[in-house]
Amino acid sequence: MTMTLPDRAFLEQLARAAAAETLPRFRMAGAVANKLGEGFDPVTEADRAAEAAIRALIGAHHPDHGIIGEEYGSEGEDRSHVWVIDPIDGTRAYISGLPVWGTLVGLTVDGVARSGFMHQPFTDELFVADGSGTFLLRGGADPQALETRKGKSPGDATLFTTTPALYEGAGREAYDRLEAAVRLPRYGCDCYGFAMVAAGHADIAIEPGLAPYDICALIPLIEQAGGVVTRWDGGRAEQGGDVIAAGSAELHEAALELLDA
Amino acid sequence: MTMTLPDRAFLEQLARAAAAETLPRFRMAGAVANKLGEGFDPVTEADRAAEAAIRALIGAHHPDHGIIGEEYGSEGEDRSHVWVIDPIDGTRAYISGLPVWGTLVGLTVDGVARSGFMHQPFTDELFVADGSGTFLLRGGADPQALETRKGKSPGDATLFTTTPALYEGAGREAYDRLEAAVRLPRYGCDCYGFAMVAAGHADIAIEPGLAPYDICALIPLIEQAGGVVTRWDGGRAEQGGDVIAAGSAELHEAALELLDA
Repeated sequence: MTMTLPDRAFLEQLARAAAAETLPRFRMAGAVANKLGEGFDPVTEADRAAEAAIRALIGAHHPDHGIIGEEYGSEGEDRSHVWVIDPIDGTRAYISGLPVWGTLVGLTVDGVARSGFMHQPFTDELFVADGSGTFLLRGGADPQALETRKGKSPGDATLFTTTPALYEGAGREAYDRLEAAVRLPRYGCDCYGFAMVAAGHADIAIEPGLAPYDICALIPLIEQAGGVVTRWDGGRAEQGGDVIAAGSAELHEAALELLDA
Repeated sequence: MTMTLPDRAFLEQLARAAAAETLPRFRMAGAVANKLGEGFDPVTEADRAAEAAIRALIGAHHPDHGIIGEEYGSEGEDRSHVWVIDPIDGTRAYISGLPVWGTLVGLTVDGVARSGFMHQPFTDELFVADGSGTFLLRGGADPQALETRKGKSPGDATLFTTTPALYEGAGREAYDRLEAAVRLPRYGCDCYGFAMVAAGHADIAIEPGLAPYDICALIPLIEQAGGVVTRWDGGRAEQGGDVIAAGSAELHEAALELLDA
């Protein structure tokens, strides 16, 4: 089986189709539903409409591919090529007016994430990995090739996580060890923090308890920009779980040691 | 003495002059200096150049006004009209690539903040209060009049703060009581959280230990959009300290009660 990847134009097409659903509803009140009843996991009409738009394009152009989506579930997930979709990652940011949410689409081939994108429509930033590298597309400007920052020491590192409150028990202790070792921790970013690591503006992004659709798009963004992303136990992150990304292999290893201390 | 305020065009002129210094350096590595030696309080060339540009315009157009700035100190602060400047609020966001920093300029008249703006150049959002109301200017679009959200109960509220780690002792206990009572706390926003309250996307913004230049610009944004901003003891916030803003008087009062419990 040869590994064929769609070209970057198709990834951009998916991003624009989703943005046509998410951006007009961003900062419009009243579109919030509550998915879990208990707790707070808002899902908007935008979430559903964006995933539907993405699935329609994939179905039309790649009918032999499988799809896993946050909103509408799985179909053909045993196929070689499987798309993994989170139409709005960072729904809390979305409903709070903050432009740090994103549309995530990754493509796994035989279980390994090979291409994908994170799109932030309000800032007009498309972070995309197409198999040849990671690029930032913004406005009409030429694609900008991205490279991670190559810091090696946690003591020099900027770290992103959504909030320490998401970590529990031994996971919280492990996270706290890492946070205490870094120069600057930043909260509140979801996927945007991973994009900042891919773009070389930050050094570590870490989250607990991710679903596959939270991370599959971000793995190629980090890897094809020169970084490393794994589960905290060092395994591949396509299935989600506790995940950490770092700009360099040395920093990633040092962070894993702190998590495992 | 009559209270004369500059028109909105002058505020916009200040914002554009600062952005010409901050935006080209945003996401460019290497411009970071360390102001305090100990700790982590980065100041960039952009910070200094932006404040210099703002001060030059004020000096040229309003030579009888005083100025208080984060970078270059005070002059004429006993005058009736005093400008209060933070060229980059949220320097940690700035150096991490996050578009939630802002340029803050407020104008106090006899000690009360009467007009001001928060400008986020990367997202092209200018939140401005000119004495007649609070407006969002973005791109070539018509100014959009902003109104705060009128939620009354902490249990329905979204709250912004930079990070709980900034609160200490009894202040941390007070903050924790409020955070436990709200529906959704969000971290990591500095001035952007106050702008979201002014724009009606969030309900509460709260910070401990602010300097005057952290808050003077934001007071008119909140007040002229229909919200309330005070110190935690209920006093005016122009001198900084522990500050809380809320979209409605009822919510503000309920929040103060929780802080003071």
